[in-house]
Amino acid sequence: FFFQAEDGIRDSSVTGVQTVLFRSACPMPIRNYPHVLMAHGGGGRLMQQLIDSMFLSAFSHPALHARTDAAMLDSMTGRLAMTTDSYVVRPLFFPGGDIGTLAVNGTINDLAMCGARPRYLSCGFIIEEGFPMETLWRVVRSMANALAEAGVAIVTGDTKVVDRGKGDGVYINTTGVGEVAEGLLLAPSQIRPGDRILLSGDLGRHGMAIMAQREGLAFETSIESDCASLVDLVFTLVDAGIQLRCMRDLTRGGLAAALVEIAEASRCRLQISEAILPVHEQVRAACELLGLEPMHVANEGRFAAIVAPEDAERALQLMRDHALGRAATLIGEVVSHGRGEVAMVSRIGVTRIVEPPSGEQLPRIC
Amino acid sequence: FFFQAEDGIRDSSVTGVQTVLFRSACPMPIRNYPHVLMAHGGGGRLMQQLIDSMFLSAFSHPALHARTDAAMLDSMTGRLAMTTDSYVVRPLFFPGGDIGTLAVNGTINDLAMCGARPRYLSCGFIIEEGFPMETLWRVVRSMANALAEAGVAIVTGDTKVVDRGKGDGVYINTTGVGEVAEGLLLAPSQIRPGDRILLSGDLGRHGMAIMAQREGLAFETSIESDCASLVDLVFTLVDAGIQLRCMRDLTRGGLAAALVEIAEASRCRLQISEAILPVHEQVRAACELLGLEPMHVANEGRFAAIVAPEDAERALQLMRDHALGRAATLIGEVVSHGRGEVAMVSRIGVTRIVEPPSGEQLPRIC
Repeated sequence: FFFQAEDGIRDSSVTGVQTVLFRSACPMPIRNYPHVLMAHGGGGRLMQQLIDSMFLSAFSHPALHARTDAAMLDSMTGRLAMTTDSYVVRPLFFPGGDIGTLAVNGTINDLAMCGARPRYLSCGFIIEEGFPMETLWRVVRSMANALAEAGVAIVTGDTKVVDRGKGDGVYINTTGVGEVAEGLLLAPSQIRPGDRILLSGDLGRHGMAIMAQREGLAFETSIESDCASLVDLVFTLVDAGIQLRCMRDLTRGGLAAALVEIAEASRCRLQISEAILPVHEQVRAACELLGLEPMHVANEGRFAAIVAPEDAERALQLMRDHALGRAATLIGEVVSHGRGEVAMVSRIGVTRIVEPPSGEQLPRIC
Repeated sequence: FFFQAEDGIRDSSVTGVQTVLFRSACPMPIRNYPHVLMAHGGGGRLMQQLIDSMFLSAFSHPALHARTDAAMLDSMTGRLAMTTDSYVVRPLFFPGGDIGTLAVNGTINDLAMCGARPRYLSCGFIIEEGFPMETLWRVVRSMANALAEAGVAIVTGDTKVVDRGKGDGVYINTTGVGEVAEGLLLAPSQIRPGDRILLSGDLGRHGMAIMAQREGLAFETSIESDCASLVDLVFTLVDAGIQLRCMRDLTRGGLAAALVEIAEASRCRLQISEAILPVHEQVRAACELLGLEPMHVANEGRFAAIVAPEDAERALQLMRDHALGRAATLIGEVVSHGRGEVAMVSRIGVTRIVEPPSGEQLPRIC
């Protein structure tokens, strides 16, 4: 009746990162409960069964098994970093990932951007009544695989079920706690004129992969989301002693939102060069079709890093040597202090100020 | 245009707990945006405006203002505790509280149950398109007041907006991180035969306050939710050196679910006495009308504590001296080890085994 963890097929392979593939069949007794019922979120027997047979079989940290109201964890010596994100992406599955991979990678990437090694994740499911149990399991399995790849654990969780028509399949919140090494401070306040702006890869893949999946769109592409954990790449830079000032992953609002936020918070003027921005041909074509600028479109596995000028070349090389940074590029620099804005030199040499997107063009991409 | 924090009227008064009343008018420019738009969750200018004018004016921790992807916090010396809950209560406002008070108190209570002093909260909003900005502000204000009462801060947050008909006003996830003092271990594994079972107050108020608010119910009551922070009461016991073994707040599934979980996890037989269980007359009447057992109905400001027998009397007195424990009662004891079950002696002296609820009777009460 209950799932045996040993049924999971675990592969350790793949270059660089240890990948664990967790391919087991759905551990819930599907015959009895093919769909999620209101009672699965009601705090009684059925919820306990869902937790035991599905969540505990995929997320197997000792704290989860202790059945206390909160997870009891080790103390941490470094400074604490904490971040939260709810994931409401539509559709739930898309080329290159799904809401589960996004929910793990999105949150640990936010920690990594602050120089925090991800330690613990929490996970809150808001499931719509009637959601297929099998589909929930696919999402949970994706989360388990993403956790294994990143070497992070979910230590506490929560399950709520809402009535039909009051949700959209499943929403997932993950909150991450990480540890920051002594002396490491990555923040907009750290940047100064002369610093270089590096971009870890090409723009807009995630957003365009989602848009291409949505119904009613007039184009077809083979664009895959770039959704991935940036932890290994980021700590390659940190461990090599690169003088990192500030990093930001390119999620909602894309590169434009990330750089404008850094510029405004630091009161520095950043200048980037449009011609240098790496954009895949299919992403560019899809953007043109939809009237979007690639720099406004989200990634989920790319980041901008502002580094000391003397370390820029070395940082770029380290990024290019990593599977997730092959297309890393030096896109510009911090030019002056005083005005917090981003200037972009266009292909024909005209300089304009980059505006952040209003936010209405790409709803529910994460 | 932007909200000034000084507009808030802050009252410090009330016995025992410092209460801060935060009564300001909605700080968003309501004229322009009376309702939440998809763009308020899109990562652009409008989302930034919502965060700046509403969330940062209510939740004012320095980490929130730093605008990094994760909050950078102090290191903690004690062990870490972590818990998460999503709140999907319907209706959003009910006698004695709302989704905002619940989202703060529910999560910090879970930390307190493990002997963890709440330190940091995260907060993720999933807002339905079209939700009135004014109503969102009422919720945020409730959260700010609950945080101030409990002396806890929201240090990081996230805002998502989902399409009309894909949510239900607002869902809120809060995740809490707390610190556990050296040597303090509260868990089912700690209980042993002879230990006493204390209950901090009367059963079922929260669940019945919610049910009475829902449309179509044939009764009217003046029952108010007992939603409150238990932190102060719990640490009154901890600081007095009471030998606490295990605590559980009575949320979904009520006293029955809490005790059955403890019994099963500890493999101990607990015995309680039905006649002693404190239930308000109106709660009892409402339960009878709906065919519910009060011990299955949720509270949000009550807990069961299992304590060493020699400390039971003193613990009870300390609880009764506290505003939130006036009706504290000794309801039973741990009778033996081996079988994890809860036995209840009825009013007429018959002993029966307590079953946890299936979970379908009281949906979306938290």
